[in-house]
Amino acid sequence: MSNLAIVLLSGGLDSCVTTAFASQHHDLALLHLSYGQRTQAREAQAFSDIANHYNVPSQYRRTVDMQYLADIGGSALTDKNIPVPDANLESTDVPITYVPFRNAHLLCLATSWAEIIGATAIYIGVVEEDSSGYPDCTETFCTTFAQAIQAGTHPDHHIELRTPIIHRNKTQIVKLGQELQAPIHLSWSCYESNDKACGRCDSCALRLRAFEQADLTDPIPYA
Amino acid sequence: MSNLAIVLLSGGLDSCVTTAFASQHHDLALLHLSYGQRTQAREAQAFSDIANHYNVPSQYRRTVDMQYLADIGGSALTDKNIPVPDANLESTDVPITYVPFRNAHLLCLATSWAEIIGATAIYIGVVEEDSSGYPDCTETFCTTFAQAIQAGTHPDHHIELRTPIIHRNKTQIVKLGQELQAPIHLSWSCYESNDKACGRCDSCALRLRAFEQADLTDPIPYA
Repeated sequence: MSNLAIVLLSGGLDSCVTTAFASQHHDLALLHLSYGQRTQAREAQAFSDIANHYNVPSQYRRTVDMQYLADIGGSALTDKNIPVPDANLESTDVPITYVPFRNAHLLCLATSWAEIIGATAIYIGVVEEDSSGYPDCTETFCTTFAQAIQAGTHPDHHIELRTPIIHRNKTQIVKLGQELQAPIHLSWSCYESNDKACGRCDSCALRLRAFEQADLTDPIPYA
Repeated sequence: MSNLAIVLLSGGLDSCVTTAFASQHHDLALLHLSYGQRTQAREAQAFSDIANHYNVPSQYRRTVDMQYLADIGGSALTDKNIPVPDANLESTDVPITYVPFRNAHLLCLATSWAEIIGATAIYIGVVEEDSSGYPDCTETFCTTFAQAIQAGTHPDHHIELRTPIIHRNKTQIVKLGQELQAPIHLSWSCYESNDKACGRCDSCALRLRAFEQADLTDPIPYA
């Protein structure tokens, strides 16, 4: 069996540090999801830059278009006949990120690919403290999903699910990235811009505060 | 909470009987998956006919295009650089049906939709004896996946996973369909034709043998 691990890599800070963590133990296969988000092209660039940084060969880089989730999730936001039970569906900005059970879809894609390429681990950069009511970001969910992976894949093929930053806060994640020499300068978190990070959106604000609290300087350019 | 259940309805015999089973206990929400299969239009027709039979309102009928799985699965069949570890990937006929962990993807879609519409159950017509090495058709897999659903969805929203035909053979499924007055005349199993069923493909052969062993006549037209 190979020493390959699949990392779910959005291109943001959390998944960049998760990739650095995985690279200490495994050869990397990187999986990116696109879903029509505003900064899709910039995130794809970050994905590609981080993949190049780790010299990941082309057959171990995959991007999957998740627009299919709009067939399920989008409808709840537009169809007034359908009750919307969860507060987390109220945003209409990037609806697909708010589809319930979304991380399960990501892990399914990673698991199918792991079976195909013979990878022995899947890394996902979920953070339980950021989950704010998303049950599919919790350790409990990841533990039970790991059992479903084991039960639903080839019995001779053991695939571990690893969540190295699940109990860290953003400041600790920045510090870990520094320790692991993660290519944080290639990551991208801003929701508002494709050029320089805006420094003002929620994602930039969280990132900048984490660097400040870690006594480090964020290496990406800000407007 | 509603009395809605989501049924994964391909339009074939197994899912038709599963739908009949679910209809005894629930209001129905029907989920259909398309993936570029040869008889896609005919299966969509069967889906629509069965939905009409049960008077399912339009907002509780959904079709999701699963071509996204080709981004993961199709590559293994065409890219010689990628090792293909499992015998079940050798067929090149309808590759997406052979994607490992496929049923997990179906159940994820059903779970996301269940959260959105407040459904309390998901029905899937998997049959363990037909699984022939697909671990994601087994009761063990379904049981563990049910736990992942519970852990990964809203804590106040309990979604049961039900597999009413998992331990039945095809003949028993035909008999159950008869008992439940399932609209078997509207189902479609043939892989080869969109008009009358061919009667010769593997799927027709299995279906015809089951009716014969059940001492019943298949109500659909054969060429």
